[in-house]
Amino acid sequence: MAMAEVSIVPLGIGKTGVSEYVAGAIQELKKSGLKFQLTPMGTVIEGSLDELLAVIRRMHETPFQKGVKRVYTVIKLDDRRDKESTMESKVEAVEKKV
Amino acid sequence: MAMAEVSIVPLGIGKTGVSEYVAGAIQELKKSGLKFQLTPMGTVIEGSLDELLAVIRRMHETPFQKGVKRVYTVIKLDDRRDKESTMESKVEAVEKKV
Amino acid sequence: MAMAEVSIVPLGIGKTGVSEYVAGAIQELKKSGLKFQLTPMGTVIEGSLDELLAVIRRMHETPFQKGVKRVYTVIKLDDRRDKESTMESKVEAVEKKV
Amino acid sequence: MAMAEVSIVPLGIGKTGVSEYVAGAIQELKKSGLKFQLTPMGTVIEGSLDELLAVIRRMHETPFQKGVKRVYTVIKLDDRRDKESTMESKVEAVEKKV
Repeated sequence: MAMAEVSIVPLGIGKTGVSEYVAGAIQELKKSGLKFQLTPMGTVIEGSLDELLAVIRRMHETPFQKGVKRVYTVIKLDDRRDKESTMESKVEAVEKKV
Repeated sequence: MAMAEVSIVPLGIGKTGVSEYVAGAIQELKKSGLKFQLTPMGTVIEGSLDELLAVIRRMHETPFQKGVKRVYTVIKLDDRRDKESTMESKVEAVEKKV
Repeated sequence: MAMAEVSIVPLGIGKTGVSEYVAGAIQELKKSGLKFQLTPMGTVIEGSLDELLAVIRRMHETPFQKGVKRVYTVIKLDDRRDKESTMESKVEAVEKKV
Repeated sequence: MAMAEVSIVPLGIGKTGVSEYVAGAIQELKKSGLKFQLTPMGTVIEGSLDELLAVIRRMHETPFQKGVKRVYTVIKLDDRRDKESTMESKVEAVEKKV
């Protein structure tokens, strides 16, 4: 299991708000059944590396389906193989040390 | 008011876990009084652009104070000036469209 | 054709230098035949979106093959579908306006 | 000396091309006298951490001066304090191992 954060930014649309495009990407993500968390600056997803890249590929496609001509997507992958790491365990490990 | 996400990654430490270093950065952030949210892949902070860059500068310094020799920090800035945008309003705008 | 930038960061190794791991990822990239440019902060690659994600998947795997237990990878995708965009044309478009 | 990569993305403009805004940011960067390299996916800059954050702050401001209402900026900082590292030495260290 790995973790990814993805931020999908549609370019060349004549308005500053992008929430409808992010919502479209989340709808695609929901079909995958993968565990995710929506944050103010991106969406964090848990899964195998192959699952993560496949769903991000489909999420990235959704703004084009709504007519957008350019999409800028930022992805962070955190892939740790020495122990199980979840969205909750990562945050808890920090919080108990603060 | 703008928003930033920061991920501080200490390099050259001989272990895979980095939570103690993230916790040190969060302690520094707390001193600023800025509103923030810890996520599994970064910390989201709300403030003026100058406040954000100043606190990220100090957060980035904390692993060095613990003896780390190289720090890799990834920052995303989202700066919207046509309307007030908060961590809550950004997530809500997406959630109500999903 | 789209463009990606990838930065592969091995964690939990007891030294600050990471060039041998980046070199291993580049060797994997070279096998793909895709056009790429090595920069001081990442590697820029040109290809179809599927080609890009597939090769990044393999590049991300290379540090694990050398015994690394955690890899942090940052990817930016720039996917423009209204006109052909290359690594050269993007830089030239900026340079002639500076 | 540290190194930064910055990508400045103007949102809410009604066209896909952003090179004029990147060029404006580069003009601001040039005033600083800092060493930089323009790449297809961002601009790499060498300097002290304070110099880097100060110039990125000014670069981020330039699209607003042209009427843009939202700017999305992605920054990577690579700050290594055990040895001198330059844009050239980082690339060479990788190339000689490939």
